Amino acid sequence: MADPRASYTLGPNQYGKAEVRLVRVDRDTLRHRVTDLSVTSQLAGDFTAAHTSGDNAHVVATDTQKNTVYAFARDGVGAPETFLLRLADHFTGSFAWVTGGRWAAEQYAWSRIPTSTAPEGHDHAFSRDGAETRTALVVRDGDATTVLAGLKDLVVLKSTGSEFAGFPRDEYTTLADTDDRILATSVTARWRYAGSVPASFGADRYDSAYATVRAAMLDAFAATYSLALQQTLYAMGAAVLDSVPEIAEIRFSMPNRHHFLVDLAPFGLDNPGEVFYAADRPYGLIEAAVLRDDADAAEPVWAAAAGFC
Amino acid sequence: MADPRASYTLGPNQYGKAEVRLVRVDRDTLRHRVTDLSVTSQLAGDFTAAHTSGDNAHVVATDTQKNTVYAFARDGVGAPETFLLRLADHFTGSFAWVTGGRWAAEQYAWSRIPTSTAPEGHDHAFSRDGAETRTALVVRDGDATTVLAGLKDLVVLKSTGSEFAGFPRDEYTTLADTDDRILATSVTARWRYAGSVPASFGADRYDSAYATVRAAMLDAFAATYSLALQQTLYAMGAAVLDSVPEIAEIRFSMPNRHHFLVDLAPFGLDNPGEVFYAADRPYGLIEAAVLRDDADAAEPVWAAAAGFC
Amino acid sequence: MADPRASYTLGPNQYGKAEVRLVRVDRDTLRHRVTDLSVTSQLAGDFTAAHTSGDNAHVVATDTQKNTVYAFARDGVGAPETFLLRLADHFTGSFAWVTGGRWAAEQYAWSRIPTSTAPEGHDHAFSRDGAETRTALVVRDGDATTVLAGLKDLVVLKSTGSEFAGFPRDEYTTLADTDDRILATSVTARWRYAGSVPASFGADRYDSAYATVRAAMLDAFAATYSLALQQTLYAMGAAVLDSVPEIAEIRFSMPNRHHFLVDLAPFGLDNPGEVFYAADRPYGLIEAAVLRDDADAAEPVWAAAAGFC
Amino acid sequence: MADPRASYTLGPNQYGKAEVRLVRVDRDTLRHRVTDLSVTSQLAGDFTAAHTSGDNAHVVATDTQKNTVYAFARDGVGAPETFLLRLADHFTGSFAWVTGGRWAAEQYAWSRIPTSTAPEGHDHAFSRDGAETRTALVVRDGDATTVLAGLKDLVVLKSTGSEFAGFPRDEYTTLADTDDRILATSVTARWRYAGSVPASFGADRYDSAYATVRAAMLDAFAATYSLALQQTLYAMGAAVLDSVPEIAEIRFSMPNRHHFLVDLAPFGLDNPGEVFYAADRPYGLIEAAVLRDDADAAEPVWAAAAGFC
Repeated sequence: MADPRASYTLGPNQYGKAEVRLVRVDRDTLRHRVTDLSVTSQLAGDFTAAHTSGDNAHVVATDTQKNTVYAFARDGVGAPETFLLRLADHFTGSFAWVTGGRWAAEQYAWSRIPTSTAPEGHDHAFSRDGAETRTALVVRDGDATTVLAGLKDLVVLKSTGSEFAGFPRDEYTTLADTDDRILATSVTARWRYAGSVPASFGADRYDSAYATVRAAMLDAFAATYSLALQQTLYAMGAAVLDSVPEIAEIRFSMPNRHHFLVDLAPFGLDNPGEVFYAADRPYGLIEAAVLRDDADAAEPVWAAAAGFC
Repeated sequence: MADPRASYTLGPNQYGKAEVRLVRVDRDTLRHRVTDLSVTSQLAGDFTAAHTSGDNAHVVATDTQKNTVYAFARDGVGAPETFLLRLADHFTGSFAWVTGGRWAAEQYAWSRIPTSTAPEGHDHAFSRDGAETRTALVVRDGDATTVLAGLKDLVVLKSTGSEFAGFPRDEYTTLADTDDRILATSVTARWRYAGSVPASFGADRYDSAYATVRAAMLDAFAATYSLALQQTLYAMGAAVLDSVPEIAEIRFSMPNRHHFLVDLAPFGLDNPGEVFYAADRPYGLIEAAVLRDDADAAEPVWAAAAGFC
Repeated sequence: MADPRASYTLGPNQYGKAEVRLVRVDRDTLRHRVTDLSVTSQLAGDFTAAHTSGDNAHVVATDTQKNTVYAFARDGVGAPETFLLRLADHFTGSFAWVTGGRWAAEQYAWSRIPTSTAPEGHDHAFSRDGAETRTALVVRDGDATTVLAGLKDLVVLKSTGSEFAGFPRDEYTTLADTDDRILATSVTARWRYAGSVPASFGADRYDSAYATVRAAMLDAFAATYSLALQQTLYAMGAAVLDSVPEIAEIRFSMPNRHHFLVDLAPFGLDNPGEVFYAADRPYGLIEAAVLRDDADAAEPVWAAAAGFC
Repeated sequence: MADPRASYTLGPNQYGKAEVRLVRVDRDTLRHRVTDLSVTSQLAGDFTAAHTSGDNAHVVATDTQKNTVYAFARDGVGAPETFLLRLADHFTGSFAWVTGGRWAAEQYAWSRIPTSTAPEGHDHAFSRDGAETRTALVVRDGDATTVLAGLKDLVVLKSTGSEFAGFPRDEYTTLADTDDRILATSVTARWRYAGSVPASFGADRYDSAYATVRAAMLDAFAATYSLALQQTLYAMGAAVLDSVPEIAEIRFSMPNRHHFLVDLAPFGLDNPGEVFYAADRPYGLIEAAVLRDDADAAEPVWAAAAGFC
């Protein structure tokens, strides 16, 4: 094997600890609160020597990154966005060669169990909400810090109020126009806060923005008479931008989860939009960004969000 | 290869179509209802010739079973238990050599989306509840029909009110006693209705019993000061039997999802029950049945419920 | 809530530690061997007090069971069957109230990496075989010990040599007869050794029997001109029983993974058995046991194998 | 809600059909060949009207894209790279407003079953190789076409020959140096062919390059005495670039699958590198690119590879 250092160059790289499962119980009163996160920390900077010669002098151990997550949780978590910003400040502030990185979190929601004696919810018994997962991502590159908030696995369906027609027909087109179909999708979305937000928002603002965005999405999904899933997506994005002025851009990845009307005619039955087969694969996949007119496109951040390879 | 028909016997067998994904929209009014099921139909009876000589004269095609599911849905689904009973009656009534079988369903819940103009929930826009999945199983063997209802993936957690101490210690025991831990589990349960139920219950009764059982479980989980997950399980089972007299027996499979207190002492920090590591594997696994004193054990039905091999 | 101890009975129960991930490296020579298991230990016996009153005096901690797995691996693992038998002997021999239990393992195979300098395989570098997973299960109930070996996720396909015709037709039948289809399945199988085996077999015998069974299954799958998946299953079972005389019975659960011929006629193309759509759901599900004529049915063991609820 | 068309802009977008499951049987001789793919087609271009006003005149239906995949397979698949290039040419050539897109495939390998009568492998019976999945991606943007090949889920382990030491220590560092550990990872890699390749390579060249890359990776993994997973990654990348001159760059995402030595001292046992606990989460995550010195970074293509949001 040739000497790799002679002919090749180390390109973009990052490393860290992924999916640190952190559960924090706030028990300052008898009415506990539970925060449940999966945290990923990845560092960027000068790590060339580790790659080319196995010199680990710059390699902050991934175990150390994990420990830091748990130690920082001792002071409370707050919103996932603010927790990740603390981690970003720590790692870039503590190690001269760490010039940036990527810190991500998923947050799982828990609700208080309503009981016969505490119908408003038990003090320390919870059930996990199985619906969507909240996500957060902080990307730092030198002096630039970007906060992306998001959600995934928000599954929604309209049983009417959706058409699909007027599309071009070629020799491979067999799909018929329809003026009434089920529209179903699982929403994955990330919204990018304007650059001034990290310094101005606290945990409460991130939390309230999350709730506002979620409600705006659901409202637009329900209210839009849909001629295409693209149209619904765009309306959802516009509703989000209308609702939270600090959001510069939002991106969606929305599978079209096909529900096919079952042909019951062979059995002597009609099927007036009532009996459907919910297919797994293949599925449509609709992806788009909606930006404020004055927002920049911020492609590097979106690449960092999407993953490495 | 020796002639397989000479020396061997066909043992227990069943076959059918699994995971038929059925979504039904009830649209008799503008306020739609959505029923979302995954249905499995398996037949038992005289299928020896198919196995020993490839003679399919008795093999009701699995495709036919699928078609039957969709055709029957044309008339409405009702509760999963009553839908499965209809299938059982059909197959055992239509084919002389079908003497029994196993019909199973999972049901996924959808909630109306509350919107700005319809805060009580939209007429035809829904979001999927991500929490537990409702299950149903009908087992027929000749004249005997058993209905098992159930749920799975009901994830619950208590942030205090749980101890584990007083267990035996041997040379392999390193676990310390604890008087305050997180108790977390994902409840899988099936309850068996007394034999007279299938003829007496309608869809509404199965639905209301489901809601009652679920509430009783959650209430008991929250209310029980736990000395062992076994104790919590038993209390949950007792609460269910107390709540619905027609239930003869209930079985649980409950993983103990360990949450380990993180040792923050190396970082100069205490950790008074606040920062936990949520582990994936291994996990404890606690399984038990709770029966009325006068109930029979019904082992064959439970074997059918659990799967084939 | 009523006193649960008054009116209810504890039914069947078992508990333990699930999915203990054990990797053992045999490094007595420079040519290492790797054994990779997921081990589950569940105890049965007198655990009533834990359920009814939270008294843990009999509850061998699941953490202790995990520790025992690791400690026993210090002496080597051998075959999964023999390792589980050691665990069974230990727990039933060490605690008077433990009268039985269920010990299960999955084993993941690793192959030596062939390299340019060691084409026969590297001494200590391995790649994981992604094919089937080997399984083992020991069930003890008082004096009776049963060993079930098995495999799962063995995915096989025949691109011809498979028909399906002659099945009964009713008003819900739309499937046409076919004399040439793709037959594909993912084999899950468990075979039960005759009662005398546990005392007579060592690790090598279990290992060689596994290899023999696997080869016999594959050979029969390939060699059988299939008129029904049931027929293929039965032939596979017969081949296994022919190959290993100590096996009393074998059970299969085999999904029929449908590959549908795509209708290319709308595009002016024929499709002579070449282009297929591989469907996810629904799928056929064919399950059966093949026994020696003189074997007993051993239903309780199969119920234990299949799971609890 | 404000008029979304007034204040917002549609940003990057793409849409299509995902995970079209295509199995092709080449049966020109009795010795069949099986090609098993999951194909995704996504189009980019002028789709603004669909988003802003639900005008579908430009929206080539995702159903049409699926049909095209199946119709094109009638002529044979070849390598996934060449199949995707055909799709790219078709869609950008047939619809004036389609200016680019993203076509992706996963390919699942099948091996002939060796049987007693055909030890070299059966003519039409196959078993699925469970090991790594081959991936391919074609990104077109106007006149630029990039081909990325890759693999995922290639799981490898070294039982010795791996150290980790010399890393920086801070107040959150508890990890000890080690001079002998298990190194295990699941390799995900994508390599980018130089821009001239799409016009010069045929299916055979893509296939042979895949085999060469895979072997080079495994060889380097095995041969490298590892001081850090980063070093192993870099050596693997260099070996790939050494082996296939047409590859400009390769990227890896490699989790460090921790295997922790179990402390058996409490049980009076030593553990000389033999008994390990294989942990699920958290895990290290090491990601980096290795480029030829004269290669450009091609960031937009990597962003397209990684996903949308």
